[in-house]
Amino acid sequence: MKRRDMLKFGVAGGAAAVAAPALAQSQPTIRWRMQSSFPKSLDTVFGGATTIAQKVSKLTDGKFEIQVFSAGEIVGPLQVLDAVQIGTIEAGHTAGFYYIGKMPALVFDTGVPFGMTPRQHNAWMRYGGGLDLMRDLYKQFNVVQIPCGNTGAQMGGWFRKEIKTVDDLKGLRMRAAGFLGSVFSKLGVVVQQIPAGDVYPALERGTLDAVEWVGPYDDEKLGLHKVANNYYAPGVMELGASLCFIGNEAKMRELPAQYREALEAACAEANLDMLAKYDAYNIQALRRLLAANVQLRFWSNDIMKALQTATAEAMQDFAAKDATFAKVHQHWKAFRDDQVLWSAVNDGAAERFLAANRG
Amino acid sequence: MKRRDMLKFGVAGGAAAVAAPALAQSQPTIRWRMQSSFPKSLDTVFGGATTIAQKVSKLTDGKFEIQVFSAGEIVGPLQVLDAVQIGTIEAGHTAGFYYIGKMPALVFDTGVPFGMTPRQHNAWMRYGGGLDLMRDLYKQFNVVQIPCGNTGAQMGGWFRKEIKTVDDLKGLRMRAAGFLGSVFSKLGVVVQQIPAGDVYPALERGTLDAVEWVGPYDDEKLGLHKVANNYYAPGVMELGASLCFIGNEAKMRELPAQYREALEAACAEANLDMLAKYDAYNIQALRRLLAANVQLRFWSNDIMKALQTATAEAMQDFAAKDATFAKVHQHWKAFRDDQVLWSAVNDGAAERFLAANRG
Repeated sequence: MKRRDMLKFGVAGGAAAVAAPALAQSQPTIRWRMQSSFPKSLDTVFGGATTIAQKVSKLTDGKFEIQVFSAGEIVGPLQVLDAVQIGTIEAGHTAGFYYIGKMPALVFDTGVPFGMTPRQHNAWMRYGGGLDLMRDLYKQFNVVQIPCGNTGAQMGGWFRKEIKTVDDLKGLRMRAAGFLGSVFSKLGVVVQQIPAGDVYPALERGTLDAVEWVGPYDDEKLGLHKVANNYYAPGVMELGASLCFIGNEAKMRELPAQYREALEAACAEANLDMLAKYDAYNIQALRRLLAANVQLRFWSNDIMKALQTATAEAMQDFAAKDATFAKVHQHWKAFRDDQVLWSAVNDGAAERFLAANRG
Repeated sequence: MKRRDMLKFGVAGGAAAVAAPALAQSQPTIRWRMQSSFPKSLDTVFGGATTIAQKVSKLTDGKFEIQVFSAGEIVGPLQVLDAVQIGTIEAGHTAGFYYIGKMPALVFDTGVPFGMTPRQHNAWMRYGGGLDLMRDLYKQFNVVQIPCGNTGAQMGGWFRKEIKTVDDLKGLRMRAAGFLGSVFSKLGVVVQQIPAGDVYPALERGTLDAVEWVGPYDDEKLGLHKVANNYYAPGVMELGASLCFIGNEAKMRELPAQYREALEAACAEANLDMLAKYDAYNIQALRRLLAANVQLRFWSNDIMKALQTATAEAMQDFAAKDATFAKVHQHWKAFRDDQVLWSAVNDGAAERFLAANRG
């Protein structure tokens, strides 16, 4: 057979393979357990997990059911990756940057200070090679990752006192997680690791001066404005936080192709949906907070520049110690720089005009 | 039976109905034809239609197949709505603003000058009531709409001469479609309606002075920079253009619930995917265009303000003549104004810092 005929045969074979499912094979019933790293009280971010489960069920006519558990119901919120890796649960709903201690490069799966917007992050994942890079990292934990949500830019946090200069950050006792913590500490902030439930009383007693949380809609529920009412913007430290679905690799391989597609599609829709919900609800919550006497304040340009420099230094620190981090950072930064340029030329510039000319 | 018991019975009945599909009914094989309003040469925007068809096929194990046709293969590019309405084809891939002549309010389904970003548009659709409003409009054409893609902000267009002042727009012969055309004409632009294929020779001969098209990646293919090399930004006239899937209402009702879900999920993923592709490719194309001697120019603040005022006037013109337009515009504007404010406080402000401090 000539090469040309082989190719023709190959095409015909492919067509036959596509037609095969019409023989109506019945699909198996599959039940999974998925735990989120987030509490039920955050209907935005935890809601992403239920969105995925509901969509998957509908897409498979109820044959692939994922039972959703909130943080702590099976394992602790930050043990989700471990639990999926060893198969305690088939799937998890979490954020890569929680696992900075296991593998620092996973922070790029979620977002880093002075990083990408949700839109830029999606472009990096889908057409910039980001998803391949991230899946290579997660493979070392025997899990497959699918991006499944984004909070949008998070606010700068709640501060008991006004922060006018870079010096005002020195000695400040602030709760800030992971990579953010390492940036703030470069500016003299005394970073605290305390459980979420202890934040309110600590601010009230004055043993804590500041906390960074999410945005108006989520923050309002915690009532932080009652004990620290200087609310800082803009969210340069977190222009987006991308959530991820993670599935145990062996369990993912056992899924029929159709169910795997259902998972991917459900996560894509959850990705779109979560940001839309945050955008619609955050501005309403911000209005309520302002009516409750919250002081909306903006970082000075000097403070943002100091944070940007500290971020670059923290990146270099991690890159010097970790070749994987260095490789991912280089790839990520090239794409990010291009996207910032494109936004500065077109989309961002148009938004800038509208922000200045609201009429 | 008391009302309370009836409710309980209702719930129990609902649970039984959910369990029913486990009886393994075999799903029907369905073949649809879908025509796009876009040519195959635009792999970005036309590609959205093939993305939808491929995803739907995979999600239904090949049982629901949608055959995709490009502009003109069955009906003309702007006859897609008609063809779906009367059932010539089951589905279409198009943009609402093409049908401004049939129903002006459909422009809000796509985007209007000084309008919403793709992200804000998604928020309006999913959590702002926009989708319900739009589906009510499309219902009058017997079609169901599903948002399925966005180009992001489009560039300001190609101009043979530099446009320094508002006066430079007077008498300019420009190809600009639909609502955009009515805004430009308020500033003295002589808006031309000529087929896409005639644009290049008209610019070359000098019988046309300017054209607005899409963005660097799509525009580069047409080679417009060779005959009009002043390329204007930012895209205030089109901060986003949302594409839509439309399905014939009767045909949509015939679909099993699972197939309908597959369509919705496929469109959501196509929505996310198209913008990611544009963002990744546009900046690369812009670099190539700049290397080919294109003059990247920015609208002056005066020109943007004049365009914004003309847009507000055009909105009022349409609203005065059409109660539906007035109703949708009011709803849309309240949401848009809130979103612009939120962006000015947080996400957009963070992006603005990065644009100014790229280091």
